[in-house]
Amino acid sequence: MDIKIIVGTLAGILTSISSVPQIVKVIRDKKAQAISPVMFFVLLAGNLGWTYYGTLLTDWPIICTNAFAAMLDVCMIILNYKYNKM
Amino acid sequence: MDIKIIVGTLAGILTSISSVPQIVKVIRDKKAQAISPVMFFVLLAGNLGWTYYGTLLTDWPIICTNAFAAMLDVCMIILNYKYNKM
Repeated sequence: MDIKIIVGTLAGILTSISSVPQIVKVIRDKKAQAISPVMFFVLLAGNLGWTYYGTLLTDWPIICTNAFAAMLDVCMIILNYKYNKM
Repeated sequence: MDIKIIVGTLAGILTSISSVPQIVKVIRDKKAQAISPVMFFVLLAGNLGWTYYGTLLTDWPIICTNAFAAMLDVCMIILNYKYNKM
């Protein structure tokens, strides 16, 4: 298998799942005061941009990893809104 | 200019600078308790992976945006360590 495909897929998986530990921490601690919602709005815009880029190239790994990341960003924005003032 | 280059560049800039509002917020509030350091370690690994992917393709936009993002991840890890227990 091509080293580029391996490196690109691994890097894509890592950047896509990076929000998971943050989501788990917020749900567990029920605290989100220190988290910047702006960060996740910018990430959401970026991940949706990459998803669109993937559709332009018909590149399914780009589409799937970024659509998944965008979904996590939306979760994080909702959690931030829910726990920010508690 | 090709629409793919515009969309890819915009998405790359957005995902790269997404940590900036979080870094600004932590420096301003001097609080990082709710932030998951694991998130930024995973992001750092992913961004370094993308930087390596960029060197394999000799693609400077991929190299520059991800090396910059990796630098921001390191800043965020240091800030998290500094302000997590204060």
